[in-house]
Amino acid sequence: MIGLPQEQRRMMEMSLEKVYAYIDSHTDVFVESLVKLVKQPSVSAKGEGIQECAELVEKMMRDTGLSTKTLHEEKGNPVVYGEIKSQKSDRTLLFYDHYDVQPPEPLEKWMCKPFSGKIANGKVYGRGASDNKGNFVSRLKAVQALLEVAGDVPVNLKFFVEGEEEIGSPHLEPIIKRYKDLFSADAAIWESGGTDRRGRPNLYLGLKGVLSVEVRARGASRDVHSANAPIIPNAAWRLLWALNLLKDKEENILIEGFYEDVLPPSSEEIECLKNIPFEEEETKKELGLREFLQNRSGLEALRTLLYQPTCTINGYVSGYTGKGSKTVLPHEASAKLDFRLVPNQNPTEIFQKLVRHLKRHGFGDLEIIKHGSTEPTRTPVNDPFVKLVARTAEKVYCKKAVIYPTSAGSGPMHLFRNFLSYPVVSAGCSHPKSNTHAPNENLKIKSFIKGSKLIATLISDFAS
Amino acid sequence: MIGLPQEQRRMMEMSLEKVYAYIDSHTDVFVESLVKLVKQPSVSAKGEGIQECAELVEKMMRDTGLSTKTLHEEKGNPVVYGEIKSQKSDRTLLFYDHYDVQPPEPLEKWMCKPFSGKIANGKVYGRGASDNKGNFVSRLKAVQALLEVAGDVPVNLKFFVEGEEEIGSPHLEPIIKRYKDLFSADAAIWESGGTDRRGRPNLYLGLKGVLSVEVRARGASRDVHSANAPIIPNAAWRLLWALNLLKDKEENILIEGFYEDVLPPSSEEIECLKNIPFEEEETKKELGLREFLQNRSGLEALRTLLYQPTCTINGYVSGYTGKGSKTVLPHEASAKLDFRLVPNQNPTEIFQKLVRHLKRHGFGDLEIIKHGSTEPTRTPVNDPFVKLVARTAEKVYCKKAVIYPTSAGSGPMHLFRNFLSYPVVSAGCSHPKSNTHAPNENLKIKSFIKGSKLIATLISDFAS
Repeated sequence: MIGLPQEQRRMMEMSLEKVYAYIDSHTDVFVESLVKLVKQPSVSAKGEGIQECAELVEKMMRDTGLSTKTLHEEKGNPVVYGEIKSQKSDRTLLFYDHYDVQPPEPLEKWMCKPFSGKIANGKVYGRGASDNKGNFVSRLKAVQALLEVAGDVPVNLKFFVEGEEEIGSPHLEPIIKRYKDLFSADAAIWESGGTDRRGRPNLYLGLKGVLSVEVRARGASRDVHSANAPIIPNAAWRLLWALNLLKDKEENILIEGFYEDVLPPSSEEIECLKNIPFEEEETKKELGLREFLQNRSGLEALRTLLYQPTCTINGYVSGYTGKGSKTVLPHEASAKLDFRLVPNQNPTEIFQKLVRHLKRHGFGDLEIIKHGSTEPTRTPVNDPFVKLVARTAEKVYCKKAVIYPTSAGSGPMHLFRNFLSYPVVSAGCSHPKSNTHAPNENLKIKSFIKGSKLIATLISDFAS
Repeated sequence: MIGLPQEQRRMMEMSLEKVYAYIDSHTDVFVESLVKLVKQPSVSAKGEGIQECAELVEKMMRDTGLSTKTLHEEKGNPVVYGEIKSQKSDRTLLFYDHYDVQPPEPLEKWMCKPFSGKIANGKVYGRGASDNKGNFVSRLKAVQALLEVAGDVPVNLKFFVEGEEEIGSPHLEPIIKRYKDLFSADAAIWESGGTDRRGRPNLYLGLKGVLSVEVRARGASRDVHSANAPIIPNAAWRLLWALNLLKDKEENILIEGFYEDVLPPSSEEIECLKNIPFEEEETKKELGLREFLQNRSGLEALRTLLYQPTCTINGYVSGYTGKGSKTVLPHEASAKLDFRLVPNQNPTEIFQKLVRHLKRHGFGDLEIIKHGSTEPTRTPVNDPFVKLVARTAEKVYCKKAVIYPTSAGSGPMHLFRNFLSYPVVSAGCSHPKSNTHAPNENLKIKSFIKGSKLIATLISDFAS
């Protein structure tokens, strides 16, 4: 009885060595697949290249040996689903990824075309290279390696690849609810994650929620000469005064009731935070900052980053923004904002509070558009799946895993964690200089390949 | 002694009839000249087409029979100067015009290309058609008509045509000071003015000053993912909080000492205001407004428009402003503002007060750039030249002239009125729907031709 698991483990280790060798010897073709996917634009914010990218993702899964389905919801971008059954196990592991990417702007700050998939300095450059096409391809290639080496996968595997993550997954909930059985699993690996500056694997057990809105102000029916300023309303000022009601310069969000549902971190989570090696000085140096906001540092800064809900201006525009000056009085102004939310804040309620707040303060004339939202969620730090993923990552990277009770980022994890009810952990192949959501996004080829090995090992470990 | 002036007057009237006939019969070629000038872009804010436009203006003056000079100041756009001496009189009338125009943006709101000079609905369309190429051409054509009909001009005439009016005439002062004698005159006609909705000629005796600035905020060294918002400074918020310190939503400018040099209108000016038929309802209707700012109306709104200094956002931009949403945290933000100033506010002092105010409130890190400035000025309502221009305008338009003690607009009038020390009155050929500084700027051909007749008559009356 004791001998058998040991024998199994030895067999598995031998088999994994072959899988690693397969991955190493196929680096070039794996990178080629990634480049091909990066070259296909898929900007959900602009509806650019979505259908083409979904088709490419489905083809890549079919070519690997998965059976696939493309799931549509009215108006939404397709979800591409793929699965492969194991002959040996009833357990199921699901991978959540997305094929859509952030808009590539500002274009002038890229050193190459954002959808070129250019290879330079051992990296693949392009919007989506790191977030999240790299993870998707590394996972799919892990499955390919397992199939090629062993002719089977050790557990049932499911790929859930959506196309609206970067705009807040507005059409995901009805799909999850309609295909509840299809997406059943024992656990899920989330899209993001990677290694930190010291090469330690970082695992994330939760996500903040997000609420994306646009606020628009209007004045006269057209722009007028600014000499008319004493009597004609100015949309740029009106929007500015309204936004100023949302947050003060000490970073306090002023919307009535904004903080009332915020859950403080548990004592277990606080303990977890203490073990996170927060790379404070490196981050400041990389971003050219002398201090973080409010001079926070150490555990306080980390706790703020992970547990504080936010109200962020993503951008605004009004009037003349070209060279030099123009004496014009703008008749329209708009701003885009996102709110990052923590358990138990609810994006629908926060939107209502925002609308009420602006109305109460005399700005009921502003147009407030909801672009998308997701709820916050967390998997408990003591869940057995969390421990399994941590052990596997430590084995693959030969470094202690860093466990984040939550990420500062967002995504529709709550639909899997709360509605489909299984543990979800982020474990990916990103790295600190991958410039996610920024110009010159990239993925190190070494990280990409190591990520593939991590997933192959994790599938193997999940079976035992 | 009584007979002679009567005889002179009769001769002049006969002569003017011939001048009017000449103008009427040359409408098509006059319009052609205007179209040619409008077709030449001359955007001083962008340095676009300046040299070419200055050369065209000089050629047009030479072709009319004026002797010309192009005056340069280091860095500044050229001033084109033209003059013609009279055989009959020592008196001199100067015309101030400018050949530069506002930027044409937003381009998508034009019904034709902004430098097309398209003729439609009895109007010439194009940036600069009304402000101020139309006035310049109508004046030059008046001189042409006088010369063609009488072979001489009744007084000495000078044309001062600059190329930086739309950016606050930053290099004009040294030119005025260096060529003080060249620009000596007994009176000047300013660039703007026209008729109101009821066809009454409007005369303006003063201008507000203006101070154009740009304010820039910076955060990290690049844009980052908005998930970092709890700890990374956001330039968009920082700029917004700084601008919010400049004006409250009741339109009070909050810069310390901003109002301290403001001169209230004299009792004569107040009397003048009462005679101004303020076209309140028409303006509101045209601009789709239910109310003016602060619900002001009637004399109060008019007095506010003409006598209240302002702080206007001309435009701002930061981060992502495209379609949909983008979860980005912007690292830079900028805004353009203009301040309209009244006697005795001084733009240099106001700039210093602005810088001090922002620094005092914790925003010393912002970059504040001065784009240009001019001082406010006024010619007294009881000046004899004012009375002369009013009488002439009433004769030409057959309607009572409306005298504005000051315009709500700006320009370098103070250099002529205060430094060169002669009375200055605005009398032009614009009309209320000419869309000055806005898309679809235009000039009615009828107004343009009538403007030419006004100037011919004025030159003639100025001689007597």
